Amino acid sequence: MDEQAQAAKKTLLRMIPYGLYVLGVRDGDEVSAAAINWVTQTSFTPPLVAMGVKKDSGAYALLKRTGQFALSFLESGQGDIAYAFFKPTTVEGSKVNGQETEAATNGAPVIAAAPGWVEGRVVGEVDLGDHSCVVGEVTNAVLKREAKPLTLDELGVKYGG
Amino acid sequence: MDEQAQAAKKTLLRMIPYGLYVLGVRDGDEVSAAAINWVTQTSFTPPLVAMGVKKDSGAYALLKRTGQFALSFLESGQGDIAYAFFKPTTVEGSKVNGQETEAATNGAPVIAAAPGWVEGRVVGEVDLGDHSCVVGEVTNAVLKREAKPLTLDELGVKYGG
Repeated sequence: MDEQAQAAKKTLLRMIPYGLYVLGVRDGDEVSAAAINWVTQTSFTPPLVAMGVKKDSGAYALLKRTGQFALSFLESGQGDIAYAFFKPTTVEGSKVNGQETEAATNGAPVIAAAPGWVEGRVVGEVDLGDHSCVVGEVTNAVLKREAKPLTLDELGVKYGG
Repeated sequence: MDEQAQAAKKTLLRMIPYGLYVLGVRDGDEVSAAAINWVTQTSFTPPLVAMGVKKDSGAYALLKRTGQFALSFLESGQGDIAYAFFKPTTVEGSKVNGQETEAATNGAPVIAAAPGWVEGRVVGEVDLGDHSCVVGEVTNAVLKREAKPLTLDELGVKYGG
């Protein structure tokens, strides 16, 4: 791509609207949780979600090992929680990165304050870039309350382009 | 999943924010264009996008055959264009579903009125549901103007859950 096309690609890809999620994974005592925004549904039956996961992240390593994950949905106003999970994972009892967590059925950590979460298992991936496109089948979901999603726009953050 | 989890899954997956895009594909004289919303970036280098594409659609058939696509980004106020591409493809000269189109470098149709488009080639897919998660590498992009994206929310449409 020439410079003009590169700039166009950047501007256009940043037009894609995104929510904010915390991807939680656990393998025994090892826990990782990371804020991600590259998420889309990709099938109704079975219910599949695709997630762009940074390949040099701890979350990706555990995801590859266990094939299990939970995705906590953040709501409008929970920017502080998103920011907490832009940092490397630290665990203190049931707190991960200073945030109270609970365990999904598969053991993956979910954010206690989140309005809800889905959990699932990895069923495929397209692993060709700096992030892998990981596809997971949703096997369980818990909704604590209906909520307006936290968006990248609300955070004033760009991640894409 | 029990009924409660099914309902939670539906509500949560509908919290994911989406834009609206027209996926355009061409194989010689055969053209297909369809409105899609399940789109996310999944890598910076190379620039990859994942798209949920209905497997029984004409667009998917052509995509499988040619491995080439264009994705027109719709802007706020262009709901009429989105609705036009919820219908089966009809072609009349350079008009597709009544909308003026141009050709991307790879020949795929793009919406003339759109603020911009990216084109690319299919590099992988995870084909396990009613829609396939098709991953494409962006090989070119054209931006006509910066714009606020058209969203599913603006349309008042839900596609997910």
